Amino acid sequence: MINVGVIGFGNVGRSLVLELAGLNNVDLKIVSSSTGYVIVDEKNTLRELVDLANVGLKLFNHRKFIESKNSVEVFVEKDVEIAFITLPPSYLTGEPNRSIYYRLLENNISIITCDKTVLSIEFDKLMKEIRRRNLFIGYRATVTAGTPTIELARALRRRNVEKVKGLLNTTTNYIITLVEKGYSYKQAVERAVKDKFAEPEPWLDTHGWDSSAKLSIISSTLRYSVSIYEIEKIPLESVSENEIREVLENNQRYRYIAEADYIERKFIVHPVKIDKNDPLANASPLHNVVEFILENDKVVIQGPAGPAWRTAKVMISELLDYIEYKI
Amino acid sequence: MINVGVIGFGNVGRSLVLELAGLNNVDLKIVSSSTGYVIVDEKNTLRELVDLANVGLKLFNHRKFIESKNSVEVFVEKDVEIAFITLPPSYLTGEPNRSIYYRLLENNISIITCDKTVLSIEFDKLMKEIRRRNLFIGYRATVTAGTPTIELARALRRRNVEKVKGLLNTTTNYIITLVEKGYSYKQAVERAVKDKFAEPEPWLDTHGWDSSAKLSIISSTLRYSVSIYEIEKIPLESVSENEIREVLENNQRYRYIAEADYIERKFIVHPVKIDKNDPLANASPLHNVVEFILENDKVVIQGPAGPAWRTAKVMISELLDYIEYKI
Repeated sequence: MINVGVIGFGNVGRSLVLELAGLNNVDLKIVSSSTGYVIVDEKNTLRELVDLANVGLKLFNHRKFIESKNSVEVFVEKDVEIAFITLPPSYLTGEPNRSIYYRLLENNISIITCDKTVLSIEFDKLMKEIRRRNLFIGYRATVTAGTPTIELARALRRRNVEKVKGLLNTTTNYIITLVEKGYSYKQAVERAVKDKFAEPEPWLDTHGWDSSAKLSIISSTLRYSVSIYEIEKIPLESVSENEIREVLENNQRYRYIAEADYIERKFIVHPVKIDKNDPLANASPLHNVVEFILENDKVVIQGPAGPAWRTAKVMISELLDYIEYKI
Repeated sequence: MINVGVIGFGNVGRSLVLELAGLNNVDLKIVSSSTGYVIVDEKNTLRELVDLANVGLKLFNHRKFIESKNSVEVFVEKDVEIAFITLPPSYLTGEPNRSIYYRLLENNISIITCDKTVLSIEFDKLMKEIRRRNLFIGYRATVTAGTPTIELARALRRRNVEKVKGLLNTTTNYIITLVEKGYSYKQAVERAVKDKFAEPEPWLDTHGWDSSAKLSIISSTLRYSVSIYEIEKIPLESVSENEIREVLENNQRYRYIAEADYIERKFIVHPVKIDKNDPLANASPLHNVVEFILENDKVVIQGPAGPAWRTAKVMISELLDYIEYKI
């Protein structure tokens, strides 16, 4: 039996609770949100959590919800070995995410996360702390969750990758597709939020923060450490709606691309005009595409990102790998 | 310091010797071929090996070559911890490859291999022996060496992959491209051998043995064990030269495709008519493409296979991972 806890009860957190409730060798001890937590002390408590997750209700609707700004102590008390972190990102200050990570580690709790905040701000510092304490961090779900880009980067990290070029944000893909069809940016963003493709804070997508975080984590995995702050971010809206539509006539298309050049040490996220046949333009708008340029050739991966249930599935697969590895 | 040896002195074996000679923390102790071996007892011996490798000469040209059909005992004597296996495949009988693998393991020597023979014939049996003895096997280089398909399969092994569809053999790609241009099969194969794209035994490519071996290893990595013998192999030549040319007019193209259906348990390698826009038809003829179908979606990877220097580089990267992991 392994004791686990979940931090965050949004879409991914809820999907995780549903998956964890079905696992035999895993004991879900606590679920926390930004305002409080629920301790799973009996089968009924778990059943009610599953009910909340199924209907998409907030954690404070739970009968046993305890109000609190700080639940890490309860994770320690309940002997949690792995905490699943599904907090929303907080790139500007890093808080409260950063404090939560380090307090978990101080208490020898390992982490499986889909939150990119701390990894993209200070990858090396965080990893050093994890190694020093001989703990585990699983972060496959932080980048193109449904597509194993991080594992691919790990596999290529000894092979002198010179550049990475990626379509790392499906929300901007979706927005561009709508603008191509005649929507204004404003309308397209509203529609993306309504269709649940965009976060409630869509500027994280359209101003490049989400793509930068992913580019940073891919780069650090390749051993070229780059913080999210070092990456230049040109907003999607720097290209006019008309330009987006006009290039279609020349068999071209705008895509919001993240690029790293490790030789020149240049890092940028920006709208780029590309050929329609290019894999980066050709992919389904709900797919991510990442090109690793190396050895005068390239390795390209393409596949789905989320949605939440898939992100949760990937985090569970990391837990199962961890358990297998321990045995 | 870690003691290593190389088995096989063909193109990959030679590239490995060149790479290993440049590594600080690695001690190359012995290089063997099918007819004998050279013990590296001093700097001059290594220098002469590097010279042979550079000009592409055979191992028996070495001043210190010792004739012998069996060099495993010398690997033991020289305290080799990891043997690099670059033997040509031997799918029909499995020998001498199989005996060499098990004799290495019996003597607690770990393996890094680009040879697919034993993994595609009896993956589970081999892995059981390796786990039982707590040894290591690195086999990334057996499938699309330059493209980390095996690592991708490992990353997806808990995610209910339903099908795999792959362009796993660049030789048949190259042959089809030539036939499309007007070559006969016979001419195309001769040209492919001459251009060093095909093995001296091109039927391994055109009759599906090479693709089947790779499909078997991918499947076993995904935990759906399939031996190479269970895979149906339809020769490329079952499609006529004219058919290959005629479909081009309909914006289609023949490709030699390996397919696994884990739900139906069907496994086949065959020529398939596909749309020119399909990633499987669209890729550079020197690229491999593998599609993993799962979760009502797919993850696609594309990239280069060999040549020999790249295969060697990948095997070295596995050695470096092994060393890092040990520390």
